[in-house]
Amino acid sequence: MGEMNRPVRAGFHFWWPVTVRWGDMDAMGHVNNMVYFQYVESARVGYCEAWGWESRDMSSARQGPVVVSQTFNYRRQLHYPAEVEVGLECTEIRRRSFVLSCAIFRKGSDEVIGDGTCAMAWLDYGADKAVELPAAVRERLAKG
Amino acid sequence: MGEMNRPVRAGFHFWWPVTVRWGDMDAMGHVNNMVYFQYVESARVGYCEAWGWESRDMSSARQGPVVVSQTFNYRRQLHYPAEVEVGLECTEIRRRSFVLSCAIFRKGSDEVIGDGTCAMAWLDYGADKAVELPAAVRERLAKG
Amino acid sequence: MGEMNRPVRAGFHFWWPVTVRWGDMDAMGHVNNMVYFQYVESARVGYCEAWGWESRDMSSARQGPVVVSQTFNYRRQLHYPAEVEVGLECTEIRRRSFVLSCAIFRKGSDEVIGDGTCAMAWLDYGADKAVELPAAVRERLAKG
Amino acid sequence: MGEMNRPVRAGFHFWWPVTVRWGDMDAMGHVNNMVYFQYVESARVGYCEAWGWESRDMSSARQGPVVVSQTFNYRRQLHYPAEVEVGLECTEIRRRSFVLSCAIFRKGSDEVIGDGTCAMAWLDYGADKAVELPAAVRERLAKG
Repeated sequence: MGEMNRPVRAGFHFWWPVTVRWGDMDAMGHVNNMVYFQYVESARVGYCEAWGWESRDMSSARQGPVVVSQTFNYRRQLHYPAEVEVGLECTEIRRRSFVLSCAIFRKGSDEVIGDGTCAMAWLDYGADKAVELPAAVRERLAKG
Repeated sequence: MGEMNRPVRAGFHFWWPVTVRWGDMDAMGHVNNMVYFQYVESARVGYCEAWGWESRDMSSARQGPVVVSQTFNYRRQLHYPAEVEVGLECTEIRRRSFVLSCAIFRKGSDEVIGDGTCAMAWLDYGADKAVELPAAVRERLAKG
Repeated sequence: MGEMNRPVRAGFHFWWPVTVRWGDMDAMGHVNNMVYFQYVESARVGYCEAWGWESRDMSSARQGPVVVSQTFNYRRQLHYPAEVEVGLECTEIRRRSFVLSCAIFRKGSDEVIGDGTCAMAWLDYGADKAVELPAAVRERLAKG
Repeated sequence: MGEMNRPVRAGFHFWWPVTVRWGDMDAMGHVNNMVYFQYVESARVGYCEAWGWESRDMSSARQGPVVVSQTFNYRRQLHYPAEVEVGLECTEIRRRSFVLSCAIFRKGSDEVIGDGTCAMAWLDYGADKAVELPAAVRERLAKG
């Protein structure tokens, strides 16, 4: 988590804006640790929808992404009011899974609030097991 | 809750935009009942800050608003993705308390998602009891 | 909301325990206003499940309860750590709807943290409209 | 995240029970990814309070733990209703920081819902910088 590894805006092609809500803060008076994962989730859903995936269709005939693991480094405290932007980038593609790297920047600034990764598997929802990434998804991911 | 009592945009002078997050939805696949109260809270904090109240200063030397009761009528289901606007209006001023009426509209539309009220008391935080509304607050509230 | 109307434990036949989580508190350092509605929701789901309703089956062939409006009176601040108990009672049965009265008590105590109501309609989920309460549901509700 | 690295109950000395709330589920119909971090937070607050730290005292004269980074591996989906237990163990002590390993087990079972780590720094809240772990804290952490 050293300054050396600090992400930069140029590393991300997909962006999602988030308005911090007063209620995102906890009894410490700052945005709660878990809420950063909701900001990243918002971006991740937007990213997957950008390829045509529908977050509300979980029918058993379908396949889709599922989160396998997450990491997050908290670099700055965040307080209401604030506007942030979540950057996402696919940084690894495997046979049945992929990794999204993410970072939360203060809007219009290079200040990194935090950054992390989401490892995602491609799941056959009916069988509840990982299957090969379809060629179309693989192609999209290859674009960043 | 009849259609007769449906609020209209002209009834509100203070407006607060909210972007629905994917994570605002619950296992029913729609925005959770409790989350509407977070949208209203966001607007209410913005309304009070517009008069100079600071939501993070709870020092015991201070006075400020506190929610005494709330009501909400659910008129439409709401799903991600959506943009809404919360309208607020002070509709009653008493000696030590006031009532804010609120309604959530779909952005740029007359569609009412829901509406309600927040009864607020003016609290001496140190003494934890309601005190008279300061003249300056009373004046602001009188503007809507 | 006077002391005269303060609910008493004897008024409730259905009870649901809730453990306050640290994360239920907001930047004011007390349990957030909206979180009380989650405590009541937890009890309401438990109440409906006690008659055999399944909260995860929203198939369009089904009917079930839906929240139409809610009210809540905040009587005491609540802080982590705490254990509370939500009491529920059906206090009104109409043709296509019913009203649940609720109160949150500190565990094992007569201290009322807050109380309110949930007006519920009986919905045909496929048609998205209120229909008559089935006789079996009406009978259960009549028991409190 | 292989089965080889699956945590076992014997690896944890501190335990915290959590009751899954209906509202912890998201539109996928399972407990939301971010909510696991709230379960871990609940345990972490309990763990720190067990040494006498007070989560609500953030006065600038104080020092205390702050989360620097988190990881979590999702191994099983979780649905309401469920009871889980979060195990915590201090698995690394450095000069100004420490690492807590955590795992969420189904209550009374060896089924691992997920597991992860929280890297914590010891912060001087007034100066907003990491300082050396006090000897008393270091001793407690050494116990697990």
